[in-house]
Order: sequence, then structure tokens, then C-alpha cells
Amino acid sequence: MNNLHPIHDSLVSRQEKENLLAQRGMVFWFTGLSGSGKSTIATAFQRTLYEYGYVVEVLDGDNIRTGLNNNLSFTEADRAENIRRIAEVAKLFCQNGIITICSFISPTIAMREQARNIIGPDDFIEVFVDTPFEICEQRDVKGLYARARKGEIKGFTGIDSPFEAPDHAEIRITTVDTQIKDAVAKLMLTIQTRITRINK
Amino acid sequence: MNNLHPIHDSLVSRQEKENLLAQRGMVFWFTGLSGSGKSTIATAFQRTLYEYGYVVEVLDGDNIRTGLNNNLSFTEADRAENIRRIAEVAKLFCQNGIITICSFISPTIAMREQARNIIGPDDFIEVFVDTPFEICEQRDVKGLYARARKGEIKGFTGIDSPFEAPDHAEIRITTVDTQIKDAVAKLMLTIQTRITRINK
Repeated sequence: MNNLHPIHDSLVSRQEKENLLAQRGMVFWFTGLSGSGKSTIATAFQRTLYEYGYVVEVLDGDNIRTGLNNNLSFTEADRAENIRRIAEVAKLFCQNGIITICSFISPTIAMREQARNIIGPDDFIEVFVDTPFEICEQRDVKGLYARARKGEIKGFTGIDSPFEAPDHAEIRITTVDTQIKDAVAKLMLTIQTRITRINK
Repeated sequence: MNNLHPIHDSLVSRQEKENLLAQRGMVFWFTGLSGSGKSTIATAFQRTLYEYGYVVEVLDGDNIRTGLNNNLSFTEADRAENIRRIAEVAKLFCQNGIITICSFISPTIAMREQARNIIGPDDFIEVFVDTPFEICEQRDVKGLYARARKGEIKGFTGIDSPFEAPDHAEIRITTVDTQIKDAVAKLMLTIQTRITRINK
């Protein structure tokens, strides 16, 4: 520790962090019904970015509902607060230059607009994982649709709670006729378009 | 996008992220009175780490109270919730391999123990910025002590709200007889001790 650099008195800026990581922070906000394939695509996208050397975080129910938002219920107010907090955390990651994938049903236009406003439109890319309701219910990977149909889960999106499809999402992925690798390729194209200054 | 790597179906692990960044995630939790020098030392520490090539985030009132925790007041319950949320966010950063500096008064032992438990003891380094109350009040950089004395701020730590000094902080920095660069050197030593596998 004999050769400490001169100490500056300001926090490290976003630009400096982005230069260090050689990437630009941005937030991919995945919206879609339960069972639409959000997590599968988010996972494959993260894995691909990682293999290209990008630093990338996925925020999803698994790491948010069990931690930061473990004191929120599924009332309308708490669902809005859930999304607000996620957007604020995504913003922090983004401002560190990290590519951040948020994977949440986020069923209403208002919720997603709030997220866009918090994160800032320049850093926000809405990804609509557009799988028809009937297909999601057929798949029912977690058995949630069956439970909702029996009335065991109240306010289930698509059954007794609305899903408002985005009408101007930056990226739309139709999973019925698209392979995962093609969905990922579509997402990667956005990275390559938006991060032109980087050679990874 | 013709040469996509084979797609794996699991999220990128903490270990993989740490390998990519060539550093280990950890949380430095700064505690101390208002005016003790937490922010000054945190800033100098971040700047030094950055110059050595580390990815490092500072969470403080400026980026937390204005964003994630902008719906919390200064009641006892909200102060505890403030610290809980910060700890959860610090944990997310840490699990991405990022060195995270949290700079908050966090006046009670219970609050700091909660933070330690959330983040996990292996990743948590408590840093007590130990400046005597009298000195902090004399400095009064933000004029807060004067306002608290006039009764304009209620529940001000050190005046009408207690500060419980840590009795087993991993690092104690006494600012009265220590220069900033020496405080930073002490903190850097911890980095070098805990991250032995890295050559930056």
C-alpha cells in the first residue's frame, strides 16, 4: 500500500464504471403471463451474454420475493410497490454499467410505465414475451393455473386479474413459433445495436 | 449471431460472475455518527479500489433515500425497514461479485446484526468510523446538529436518539488521529487479505 494513487473526492461515475466493464448498463424488462417463457428466455439470454464476457444480472421472483420484497403481499398496492422496488434496484445495477434483466409478469401498462420512468427511458427496453393465454394454461409448468381455476389462488393474472399487453414494447417475442436460440439472437441484436463502442 | 454458444439452462452463478470480474463480492458496512467521516472515507475507498480495477458500488443516503426508500419516514419502524432493504440490495450486489460499500449511520446493534444476517457473515465487514460525538457536533458539516439542538429535527442520533457503538466491528477507524489515506490503506489491507486469488 505504499503507492496509493492520489485520492479524489468524488464517487466513481457511471461512465467510469462503464469504461471499466467495457459495456453499457441497460435494463431488459421482460413482461408476460405466468408460463409464457420469460424465465427460460431470460436465463438463456443471461448465459449467452455471460459467454460473450458481459456482466449481467437477472432479477426475478426467486431473488426478489425471498429477499427485498419478502414483506409484500399480493394486494394491488403491494404489487405496485413490488414493481417500484424492483425498478429502483434495476436502476442501481444499470447505473453500475450492468446489463440487468427483470423477469416479472408486471401485468399492467401503468406498472411498466412506472418502471420505465424510474429507470429512465434511455436505459429501458421492454420485452414482451407474447405467448397466448391458452398455451400458458396448457403448459402450466408450476401447476398455478390449475390452482387458480380451483380458486386456491386469487387475483391470478389472466384468470381473475387482467394482463394488459404492451402496445409499444421495444422487443416482442412470440414463443410458439420461435426457438429459444432465435429469441436470444433477437435480444443480442439489441445489445449489438445499442453498444456500438465495445469490442468484447 | 450465427455462432451462438450452446445454451445452458441455469442462471450464471456467483462463482462464475466472480471469475469473470476476477474479484470476490463482499460488503463493507460503514457505521458511525452523522459527520463522523463515513462518506469521505467511503468515497476515497471506492476511488482507490476503482483505480486498482475493482468494480465497487457505494450505497448511501443519496442513492437510496431518493429512490428505493423514498417512501420511508424516520420512525423507528421505517428506520429498521430502511436498513433491511439496504442490506437486501447490498446482498444482491455482493452476489454479483461486486464490492459494496454501505454508508449509513445504522445506529443500533440490532440493525447491524440484521444486516449481517441478511448479507451473511462471510461477506459482511463492519467498519466503525469512530469519531467522538463532540467532534462530529463541532464539525457539523450539514448544520444538522445545530438544527437538532434547536428541536427542528427529532430523533437525531447522538442527541435524542441513541448510537450504540459496535463492540466487535471487523475494522475500526478513528478519524481524529488518522489521515484519509491511512484509513483507506487499512481498508485495502482487508481486501488484499480476503481476496488472495486475484492479481489485479
